[in-house]
Amino acid sequence: MKPDKRYLSENCQAVSEVLARVGDKWTVLVVNILGRGPMRFNELKRTIDGISQRMLTLTLRALERDGLVTRTVYPAVPPRVEYELTPLGRSLLQPVSALAAWAIDHRASIEGARKKFDTREAGKAPKSRAA
Amino acid sequence: MKPDKRYLSENCQAVSEVLARVGDKWTVLVVNILGRGPMRFNELKRTIDGISQRMLTLTLRALERDGLVTRTVYPAVPPRVEYELTPLGRSLLQPVSALAAWAIDHRASIEGARKKFDTREAGKAPKSRAA
Repeated sequence: MKPDKRYLSENCQAVSEVLARVGDKWTVLVVNILGRGPMRFNELKRTIDGISQRMLTLTLRALERDGLVTRTVYPAVPPRVEYELTPLGRSLLQPVSALAAWAIDHRASIEGARKKFDTREAGKAPKSRAA
Repeated sequence: MKPDKRYLSENCQAVSEVLARVGDKWTVLVVNILGRGPMRFNELKRTIDGISQRMLTLTLRALERDGLVTRTVYPAVPPRVEYELTPLGRSLLQPVSALAAWAIDHRASIEGARKKFDTREAGKAPKSRAA
């Protein structure tokens, strides 16, 4: 993407909205896991350590609303419900995985930079810095 | 990135933290714009429609703290202050641009899916749905 001024301005709202949705931790994890193939609710819950029943329900519902995931009920007793990425959801897999991989790869560098910055700033007088 | 269970669990916090930072609308825009080269505060402000002085200051400071941007003061009257992506910041450019491009390209599909979902759900009885 070329960062052209008008292009970015016009699409700022779109980027903002979509990033707010897909930048969510659970969304990234669910999209990544569903990248393996369709899965039932309880399988997903077992696979994603630490997610609550409620949070998984909300995350899946938001993904379904955005057209990224389908929810299919198969007639059985009890009914079998499967979640699967739509083609739109699959198209998100690549950029989301790339960002998640970047986060993992550069975590230590960011933590190091923060410590250095905080130490440096702590030694400064409050008025020594302006934009 | 292979979505391996343990890999994701161990790095969940890292992904979450970094996405919370870089998933911010202004951060994405500033990183994209600085991808062109070093820029002064007022140039950035003019280029990014709708950003306030305060929000740009906060965004740049957070990026500096994370080690993604450097702030250089050149002795002049008034002092010239330039912002530039670090090598770490440059490495973020590719995944962030890819996600922003995805958001722009698929905005209409997501909006369409939401309308369809909301219409469909509005016609359902409140108790007809369970996880």
